Amino acid sequence: MKPALFQSKPILRWKQGESPSRQLDAVAAEEPLEIQVETRPVVVTMRTPGHDPELAAGFLLSEGLIRCREDIVKMAPHVRNASGNVLGVYLDPAVEIDFASLTRHVFASSSCGLCGKASIQSVHRHFKPVRSRVRLRAATLLGLGAKLRGAQTAFDHTGGLHAAAIFDARGRLVVAREDVGRHNAVDKVLGFGLLQGLLPFDRHILMVSGRASFEILQKALAGRIPVIAAVSAPSSLAVQFAEESSQTLVGFLRETTLNIYSRPERVTFP
Amino acid sequence: MKPALFQSKPILRWKQGESPSRQLDAVAAEEPLEIQVETRPVVVTMRTPGHDPELAAGFLLSEGLIRCREDIVKMAPHVRNASGNVLGVYLDPAVEIDFASLTRHVFASSSCGLCGKASIQSVHRHFKPVRSRVRLRAATLLGLGAKLRGAQTAFDHTGGLHAAAIFDARGRLVVAREDVGRHNAVDKVLGFGLLQGLLPFDRHILMVSGRASFEILQKALAGRIPVIAAVSAPSSLAVQFAEESSQTLVGFLRETTLNIYSRPERVTFP
Repeated sequence: MKPALFQSKPILRWKQGESPSRQLDAVAAEEPLEIQVETRPVVVTMRTPGHDPELAAGFLLSEGLIRCREDIVKMAPHVRNASGNVLGVYLDPAVEIDFASLTRHVFASSSCGLCGKASIQSVHRHFKPVRSRVRLRAATLLGLGAKLRGAQTAFDHTGGLHAAAIFDARGRLVVAREDVGRHNAVDKVLGFGLLQGLLPFDRHILMVSGRASFEILQKALAGRIPVIAAVSAPSSLAVQFAEESSQTLVGFLRETTLNIYSRPERVTFP
Repeated sequence: MKPALFQSKPILRWKQGESPSRQLDAVAAEEPLEIQVETRPVVVTMRTPGHDPELAAGFLLSEGLIRCREDIVKMAPHVRNASGNVLGVYLDPAVEIDFASLTRHVFASSSCGLCGKASIQSVHRHFKPVRSRVRLRAATLLGLGAKLRGAQTAFDHTGGLHAAAIFDARGRLVVAREDVGRHNAVDKVLGFGLLQGLLPFDRHILMVSGRASFEILQKALAGRIPVIAAVSAPSSLAVQFAEESSQTLVGFLRETTLNIYSRPERVTFP
């Protein structure tokens, strides 16, 4: 069976001046993949299912572990894991593997689960779902994009930086930071909150300039943030994570429109 | 001294119907940061310099290692590393650190260097700079964006997937893949090449739907790819990496315009 590149999710779509409507929206599929070399886990990456052997081969090539097709004897999903999210790679005995060097080079995501549900449960062992009775106006959300762009100092110069910002429930900017890495920009605004003694951000909004992934939602949960807004699309696992963590997830937040993917009860409409 | 969020780089800018012109372009700054906890390295992340203590505090919070400001006794750049890219974090003795769990959760980039130059040298130990005499027409580059979008099956549904593709020097599509993670999409097209016995891609173009970072250039080098084209902006370290790896880096590749950030001699203009 060919894995689906996207999943269908029920959302609340709102355009200023109209009533919010329930619709179905397609979101990009995101699931963890653990790559094992000779039964040893070498990386867990959040990926869109499909073409997993290619992903593993390309990863091992980029890491300098293999050089050609003949270095790989066999690749197969782990039979004892029904999720299909564990891929075993078996190399030619002549290939020397320096696991020690790999551990330092590895590009791993913040998940250790073997499926989306396990990944979420793993995070919830550290961070319980948020409990926040905050309410905010849909119109407040619409204004955040312009405020975020106004706070960005470098984007206009380069077009190459992600931005993250914390707003209070009335839409007032607390802090904004920019970085080439989306996750770094989020770490910076959370770190600002921690170092300034402002945590928990449990009546606040995290806004990101790009897409919303599992990792962004996880970081928001660490800061106890009940509302996450993204200019662009969320992934399937971000939606699932938000739902199970009692977080309100807003996507495609533009000047006059927005989509709510989870917990819409925190948003009030005119 | 406040670190600059961007750097100025000389580029060749071309608009169809005009002559290419040399200009200066601002690119987002990207440098590695190693975070040490009690002198032990816990992560290397590619970040835009500035607000490093916030980045470290937010990272440690997200990883569940610290919970409040009082958990941190001191944060300071490593005095023996002049780059300013090693940050030491010293925690309250009462904070229990589970390094073993951290290693599996860590979000590390593919660099082990302490500055951009060291990161590049580290990659070059595995992968020498490319040697390719391939030439391609600027007009061929302009057509790639439409071909990439045509090959994307899921983007129109979700708006949430990155895409990567390999083209030959005449602009013919070899393979295209989509993923929520940009690095995964690149791994998939490289892995396709490896598994199909098509490597090295030393007369080919790697095209990515978003931005070009250090990591994307590194993966391209592993596939021996001489030309990398991105729809959006490159980072400073991507430009430096491309220059030192003899790779032609094209950014802001749109329907009628493009910027060349390194090795423009491979591109011919009408």
